[in-house]
Amino acid sequence: MSSTNKVDEKARVVSPSDPQKTESDLISILDISPKVDCGRYPAKRTIGDSLKVSADILKPGHGAIVARLCYKTGAKNGWTQKQMTYDFDADRWSETFPVELGINEYFVEAWIDNYSSKLESLKKWAEVGEDISADLTELIDLAKRATNAFSAQERVKLSSVLARIQNSKNVNDTLTLLSDPEFSRSVINSIGKEGYAKSIVCKVIVDREKARFSSWYEMFPRSQGTKPGTSSTFKDCENRLGDIQAMGFDVIYLPPIHPIGHTNRRGPNNAPSKSPSDLGSPWAIGNESGGHYSVHPELGSLEDFLHFVKASRDRGIEIALDLAYQCSPDHPYVKQHPEWFYHRKDGTIRYAENPPKKYFDIYPLYFQNSNWEQLWQELLKVALYWADKGIRIFRVDNPHTKPTGFWKWLISNVKAKYPDVIFLAEAFTRPKSMKLLAKIGFTQSYTYFTWKNTKSELSEFLNEFILSDAAEYYRGNFFTNTPDILSEYLQSGGRPAFKIRLVLAATLSSVYGIYSGFELCENLAAAPGSEEYLNSEKYDFKVRDWNAPNNIKKYISKVNAIRRENAALRFTSNLRLLECDSNDILFFGKWTLDRSNIILVAVNLDPFATHYGTVKVPIDELGIDPSISYRVRDLITGNEYEWRGEANYVSLDPTVEPAHVLLVLSK
Amino acid sequence: MSSTNKVDEKARVVSPSDPQKTESDLISILDISPKVDCGRYPAKRTIGDSLKVSADILKPGHGAIVARLCYKTGAKNGWTQKQMTYDFDADRWSETFPVELGINEYFVEAWIDNYSSKLESLKKWAEVGEDISADLTELIDLAKRATNAFSAQERVKLSSVLARIQNSKNVNDTLTLLSDPEFSRSVINSIGKEGYAKSIVCKVIVDREKARFSSWYEMFPRSQGTKPGTSSTFKDCENRLGDIQAMGFDVIYLPPIHPIGHTNRRGPNNAPSKSPSDLGSPWAIGNESGGHYSVHPELGSLEDFLHFVKASRDRGIEIALDLAYQCSPDHPYVKQHPEWFYHRKDGTIRYAENPPKKYFDIYPLYFQNSNWEQLWQELLKVALYWADKGIRIFRVDNPHTKPTGFWKWLISNVKAKYPDVIFLAEAFTRPKSMKLLAKIGFTQSYTYFTWKNTKSELSEFLNEFILSDAAEYYRGNFFTNTPDILSEYLQSGGRPAFKIRLVLAATLSSVYGIYSGFELCENLAAAPGSEEYLNSEKYDFKVRDWNAPNNIKKYISKVNAIRRENAALRFTSNLRLLECDSNDILFFGKWTLDRSNIILVAVNLDPFATHYGTVKVPIDELGIDPSISYRVRDLITGNEYEWRGEANYVSLDPTVEPAHVLLVLSK
Repeated sequence: MSSTNKVDEKARVVSPSDPQKTESDLISILDISPKVDCGRYPAKRTIGDSLKVSADILKPGHGAIVARLCYKTGAKNGWTQKQMTYDFDADRWSETFPVELGINEYFVEAWIDNYSSKLESLKKWAEVGEDISADLTELIDLAKRATNAFSAQERVKLSSVLARIQNSKNVNDTLTLLSDPEFSRSVINSIGKEGYAKSIVCKVIVDREKARFSSWYEMFPRSQGTKPGTSSTFKDCENRLGDIQAMGFDVIYLPPIHPIGHTNRRGPNNAPSKSPSDLGSPWAIGNESGGHYSVHPELGSLEDFLHFVKASRDRGIEIALDLAYQCSPDHPYVKQHPEWFYHRKDGTIRYAENPPKKYFDIYPLYFQNSNWEQLWQELLKVALYWADKGIRIFRVDNPHTKPTGFWKWLISNVKAKYPDVIFLAEAFTRPKSMKLLAKIGFTQSYTYFTWKNTKSELSEFLNEFILSDAAEYYRGNFFTNTPDILSEYLQSGGRPAFKIRLVLAATLSSVYGIYSGFELCENLAAAPGSEEYLNSEKYDFKVRDWNAPNNIKKYISKVNAIRRENAALRFTSNLRLLECDSNDILFFGKWTLDRSNIILVAVNLDPFATHYGTVKVPIDELGIDPSISYRVRDLITGNEYEWRGEANYVSLDPTVEPAHVLLVLSK
Repeated sequence: MSSTNKVDEKARVVSPSDPQKTESDLISILDISPKVDCGRYPAKRTIGDSLKVSADILKPGHGAIVARLCYKTGAKNGWTQKQMTYDFDADRWSETFPVELGINEYFVEAWIDNYSSKLESLKKWAEVGEDISADLTELIDLAKRATNAFSAQERVKLSSVLARIQNSKNVNDTLTLLSDPEFSRSVINSIGKEGYAKSIVCKVIVDREKARFSSWYEMFPRSQGTKPGTSSTFKDCENRLGDIQAMGFDVIYLPPIHPIGHTNRRGPNNAPSKSPSDLGSPWAIGNESGGHYSVHPELGSLEDFLHFVKASRDRGIEIALDLAYQCSPDHPYVKQHPEWFYHRKDGTIRYAENPPKKYFDIYPLYFQNSNWEQLWQELLKVALYWADKGIRIFRVDNPHTKPTGFWKWLISNVKAKYPDVIFLAEAFTRPKSMKLLAKIGFTQSYTYFTWKNTKSELSEFLNEFILSDAAEYYRGNFFTNTPDILSEYLQSGGRPAFKIRLVLAATLSSVYGIYSGFELCENLAAAPGSEEYLNSEKYDFKVRDWNAPNNIKKYISKVNAIRRENAALRFTSNLRLLECDSNDILFFGKWTLDRSNIILVAVNLDPFATHYGTVKVPIDELGIDPSISYRVRDLITGNEYEWRGEANYVSLDPTVEPAHVLLVLSK
């Protein structure tokens, strides 16, 4: 509140070019959408999307306004304007624009449309027989003055209209001429923008489609061979590509591929190392062979790695690397930049710790050190080094333990050079912090999906992260398992459990992943009550029979093919939880905007027993005639069913097929 | 996104004194509440309220933070700080402060608490037997350095603690000493504010209690006499005060009291005037006797008016005036400031119009005229003139037809001088525009209550305006009727309808009003289908028998007394719609925070028939034992009932009592 009663000139007269001033006395633009946290963070979209921008535009009294959406896409410098449309029922204005890769910006502007207001009012008076001659002369004068600001082109096109207006002897003819769409638009744009107001400027990060639609396969490169007790190499990894491609994955994520430290190495099953031949964790990065720029010699050379990357690309598979910004005590940084680590009074460097646990093979970087700027630049250099080599996906290890501002700066700088880079945040922390990482720039995020098994757990989780406002910026990557997480459900549920979790991950979310061994239904835990794998690859080699009996590779291939072939499954924002009267059956749907592809999924969440129930198909929304039956095809089995109306029956035996993935064939 | 990869120094190092910079690399403060439209508009509270401010405060990794609420109340210049409390389940920080009349401001600040973080970590290590001596020395050094910044007072009080810390030989003793609450608080406040961040600054307008709790009575001062065909005077109005006080009203709102124009006066029932003795509408303000500063001579002198104001005040009743910023063609402004009116090309001034209607007795003011600043100042002078005379409540006529910026400016300037002034917006327009007027400063607002009669209509209306986010800034004044609105429900529903609407208005909302004649159940419309009163006072005198049979004055007295005596009914924000299985019975409740006053209201919405149903009392929330019965007393009839558990039976005969207003007596 101002303590002076002097009229604030600036508060009244708003220049369209003043970026600070958004409100005028006459027009208020409120609640522009999408916006994340009041416009503080960008929303997210992918190439091919049309972004619908809406706003409330309020003005006193009657009369018309001009409302425009102004947007700037990655490729262009200037603002493009588009007239917005008014939805009377919602009392809201909106318009869409096609997004482009990179950062796009948008805002809404509006001003009083005196010309149309007066014209409409004169039409109404003319209709009731009122003498409008004085007002009509005035309006013609206004239009005439406006033509002075016409472009040469407008002048050529519209001078005849003006001449006809001035020569018109009939009031109704004059009104019709004044209403000429092209003429009136030019007049409106040429007269002063009275009451000009604009919204805040919002941003949207536009990624390539893989940010929204991809199927991940995590594997340890040292465990892809056939000789027990020997590290496999990137060449061995290449031999796995056919199998991985056949399963339908398009991203392979590798844990750190860098040299592994020697100091305090972890031995098998995470025991302190007792033998020099112990392998250590790939996350204990760096030794005398190098650090984050180097490749672990046992895996091969940099060239071998790049050959593997190319071989993968040839099969339509992209390689994702792990950005784990931490060091083994043997990392070159420790000697080159001791100041990047926290030194205690006694001169020792603090290990990574979470009392009462200490990680003796890892020194955390000290982001608040006095030489922090150099450290930040170095870490950016690491990311750009791999991006320069063609890596465009990074899975980021534990980002929530490092400064948020660092990630915001790093991601924006990497994407300034390579806007197609995807960053996946591996943050298992409190929901608000996970969401914050997505807001400040992470493209995708790990989720709690891995632990959500019951209908109520899944619904609550989906409602918080997927079906909430978070959908604007949070893209959950639903992993069925990770090297750290073999859930109790998988440990105990057998093969049906693996199929259930696979189909849930792959159809609930357009982005999902498995960690290798899942396809073989590996379910042995390190200890009762533990979620660690027995003889975990984190500390050991593993040799597997990739065609072991009981594997679910064909099931995975089928589900991934269904994902590729059905446009509705390429999105997560279209997920709709639907009703089913069985507490053991999750029923949900996804459909394209034009309803040309409608998928309905029913999953029996209980791996141990058959369940049946009545599902409720939202036929009104889907445009299905309630009086005529419609066919649905189970894309897993190929079986077709005749359904009718809302209520339909499903029965799912987990030992046969725990899920229906149904395509609605005819309506 | 920055196109440079240079670290932005300013992005990292945030000075607490920089008002622009709110985010640090380490701490993000999100979603401060209350906030209206991202902090663009103030919330509202009344004196006596404690404002609870909450925020999400997020930081990377483990460790403690210092979080403070900073607030500035009307009376004080500087900021007051208060430590905030963390709610683990909600992952949210909050604290309250006592608001004061005027504008109060608040924000949240936070920084990393390195001292507590290290101390807690050392305690955990000590517990598991780790040698912490090096880290302990370091922490003691930190504390010691901090003492250099201690105030003289702190030094005196805390030097002994430091000495004991330095002399301590036992690790656990040292940790305990370092944890001394007073000592550690001083240390924390004395070391650097690493990662300092703050939220946006939000505002709250604090009004006096009447803004939230008042009972209004609207009356035309010229119709309060006993002689037909003669204007009553302010002296006659004084004779009505006893009656109005007895009914329990504490605000009397008078339509404009100014001289009425002669040109194009309206005659009885809004017909064009045919006789010089016709009275005209009080909203056609101004003639040769004066304009907005003057009193209509037929009502008396300014002194008479002020005598009436004082006589009212002596009975605990405040007078509200009408701010109707428009002029009769005879208003002095028309000659003094022709530029304040819109002149057409032919020299005539435009009448107020809404095609195809014209109001020939009114010229609207032209707020966008070239001399607008002088006009605005003059209108402010009008409001301040009456405020100077002791008027502290203004009902504003049609604010939505005038610039929003004008009202924002006018209200803030009036309240800068008189923070206790209340502005009631009479805007019947689209909901978003009604809400905007409340956001930009109107204290109270008229509502659609007058037309909401069925259970679904009432629920929808309440959910949009009262039980939504709008509750932060929108105070609905529920009028049962106005000189413009005699609803069809009242026209047809007889005496029960009047009781139903009275009890609904008075118990749903802590602010409500009636227009005189309501107490006599006046229900004759000007024409079928019209909501206008027959022989409306807007254009005529009216003489009434204020004790006419069938009046509901005793009922009104009773309901207003119940409102005064039950703290729960002094608020609207505590309204809770509750379940009842009858579609004709609205059941709702209000209770104080401490549950010392619990009111449950059941209203039969049908004036023509008895309805009964089972209501559902939220016994869990009210702390009522489900196994023990509890007594409720109907405050209208004095009858008491023995209720038990959630489900209880009600039956309401509108010809006897259409509503229960129940006080829960024992729990």
